[in-house]
Amino acid sequence: MKATVERATLLKSLGHVQSVVERRNTIPILSNVLIEATGDAIRLMATDLDLQVVESFAAQVSTPGATTVSAHTLFDIARKLPEGSQVELSVDNNRMSVVAGRARFSLATLPRDDFPVIAESDLPTHFWLPAETLKQIIDKTKFAISTEETRYYLNGIFMHIADGNLRAVATDGHRLARVTTPLPDGAAGMPDVIVPRKCVAEVRKLLDEADTDIEISLSASKIRLTVGNATLTSKLIDGTFPDYSRVIPTANDKLLKLDPKSFAEGVDRVAAIASEKTRAVKIALDRDRVTLSVTSPENGTAAEEVPADYTSPPIEVGFNARYLLDILNEIEGDTVEVHLADAAAPTLIREDDKSPALYVLMPMRV
Amino acid sequence: MKATVERATLLKSLGHVQSVVERRNTIPILSNVLIEATGDAIRLMATDLDLQVVESFAAQVSTPGATTVSAHTLFDIARKLPEGSQVELSVDNNRMSVVAGRARFSLATLPRDDFPVIAESDLPTHFWLPAETLKQIIDKTKFAISTEETRYYLNGIFMHIADGNLRAVATDGHRLARVTTPLPDGAAGMPDVIVPRKCVAEVRKLLDEADTDIEISLSASKIRLTVGNATLTSKLIDGTFPDYSRVIPTANDKLLKLDPKSFAEGVDRVAAIASEKTRAVKIALDRDRVTLSVTSPENGTAAEEVPADYTSPPIEVGFNARYLLDILNEIEGDTVEVHLADAAAPTLIREDDKSPALYVLMPMRV
Repeated sequence: MKATVERATLLKSLGHVQSVVERRNTIPILSNVLIEATGDAIRLMATDLDLQVVESFAAQVSTPGATTVSAHTLFDIARKLPEGSQVELSVDNNRMSVVAGRARFSLATLPRDDFPVIAESDLPTHFWLPAETLKQIIDKTKFAISTEETRYYLNGIFMHIADGNLRAVATDGHRLARVTTPLPDGAAGMPDVIVPRKCVAEVRKLLDEADTDIEISLSASKIRLTVGNATLTSKLIDGTFPDYSRVIPTANDKLLKLDPKSFAEGVDRVAAIASEKTRAVKIALDRDRVTLSVTSPENGTAAEEVPADYTSPPIEVGFNARYLLDILNEIEGDTVEVHLADAAAPTLIREDDKSPALYVLMPMRV
Repeated sequence: MKATVERATLLKSLGHVQSVVERRNTIPILSNVLIEATGDAIRLMATDLDLQVVESFAAQVSTPGATTVSAHTLFDIARKLPEGSQVELSVDNNRMSVVAGRARFSLATLPRDDFPVIAESDLPTHFWLPAETLKQIIDKTKFAISTEETRYYLNGIFMHIADGNLRAVATDGHRLARVTTPLPDGAAGMPDVIVPRKCVAEVRKLLDEADTDIEISLSASKIRLTVGNATLTSKLIDGTFPDYSRVIPTANDKLLKLDPKSFAEGVDRVAAIASEKTRAVKIALDRDRVTLSVTSPENGTAAEEVPADYTSPPIEVGFNARYLLDILNEIEGDTVEVHLADAAAPTLIREDDKSPALYVLMPMRV
């Protein structure tokens, strides 16, 4: 193998693929990136056995070939090479040499044939989503993904068809986020899938640079997303997402409407007094008035009034301040609706009944 | 106590004093900031028993008084209060209330009389240093301060008079940094002092906002520095700094001269291949040529040539890449002199023989 590429091009693609590589690996080759030079392009691939990223870029290839080297080391080298330099990659005697300017590196390699590739098999469902839509789906749900490993079926975003729409749902049992988008062409008949947290995070990073449509193919066990030049293939979580629709309240009769920004700022302020562990904020509703308060045994008390529309009977309810802020930060308009039943019942939060996103938050005892 | 102050003013001063307060304290009042309202000013004080910071600012005081409340909580509250708001601080019944806009906080207090104050006693030496000079002294030495607690006498910057100049020295046994400045008026006869790392760090933070002269008073056991509105008083390290002058080589006969920026970039690049633990870079000197190289058992090898002036016999020497970079980053000109003797002897690094800063670096076996 022998190929030359501009440092910025190499760095950008390495940046995309190397973040999939875990820092610690019991299988040595999982620390490596596969580099394949063919025709007039180089193709990089990295994997953690569950998620694989592939990206290609144009290069001058004088001798086609392939090898694998440490992904983080090569990325670190590429970062430190002089800006604008041409990087020559070549393989000889189980070593890959990297030459740029006056710098020469000789890197240990592992055979390309040992590099594990996720078999793509059949991905019968195939559709496109605008980058902006996928960004919204991810941003408005991913904070609610559970990190509890014992409830592995909650460690991702549940994508499925409901009422002829595409729905994305995440929950950790304390809060739930649901985004509904029109079903894209080709998605009809897609199986229910749970996309793992790491795949979601990697896709989201790539979306920062993407502005075109994203190609998505999936089966019941795998998903493939093409974002710009990068293709991510991920195993899906093999489990059953709980029937979340039962926890979405439909008969909450007390409606609070207020400015999400003042609400969030007030919650953040009164929570300043809370000790780290119990960040419960109490919300007392009275006629057109919301009083936020926090009591901390060590520090004291905090209270703030926030203007609001509220006409139902007075009620007091407590929420985890962090969870409430996560939701309020995703509300874009200048009004948020909070639908309450009582101090123990799931509370529904949304911009309005037309908004694609809907949140459910469980109260805390305060 | 009752006083009103603009949020930005309170926040800025709290920012200065609260960073002295340790996160964990066995003595509860050490978590607190002392707030004293008198005349037309508020005075804040925070301490860790070794270092105390005091800062005053103008305020509308309607009832003079004093109390202490959690420094980090009050700082967090001030950060989150609305920009431009007026903050009213008042004490009633062992509670301090903080009111701004629609937010009200009631904070637990501890009696001001219990707040420990470092007795200032006599500080006979008194002089001024330009802010820029003190910045240079700190920046060019603090990276070499030892963090080994058993060698507590190396955990600070040694300030003393030598050859009629003021000298600042720090060393951890592997590298040494020395800065010489003309003796300021009033410093003659000052005792040798070791200024602790934490005091150095806090002063350095304040210097970012300072552009006037810094007032310094000291005795053999204490130092007081006034930076802008803040006054820091610190105990000095009670120990004897070793006779460092013996480790500064005077007869190194091999002189390497090169551009510190290319040198540093080259070292950083070849070190990319080093495993975290042993970041040794080998420097091979031959006629007008420096070859930097690193060999990593896991990753491979790296080498880079850097143009240089060198006419002495060839020599190979190894350095800790991190330590070498720390020094090179402090060289401001476009040439650095590296004076070598052999692969085991202390190496002298400086801009030139007129430069106020001088560094000694011990080689590593490579």
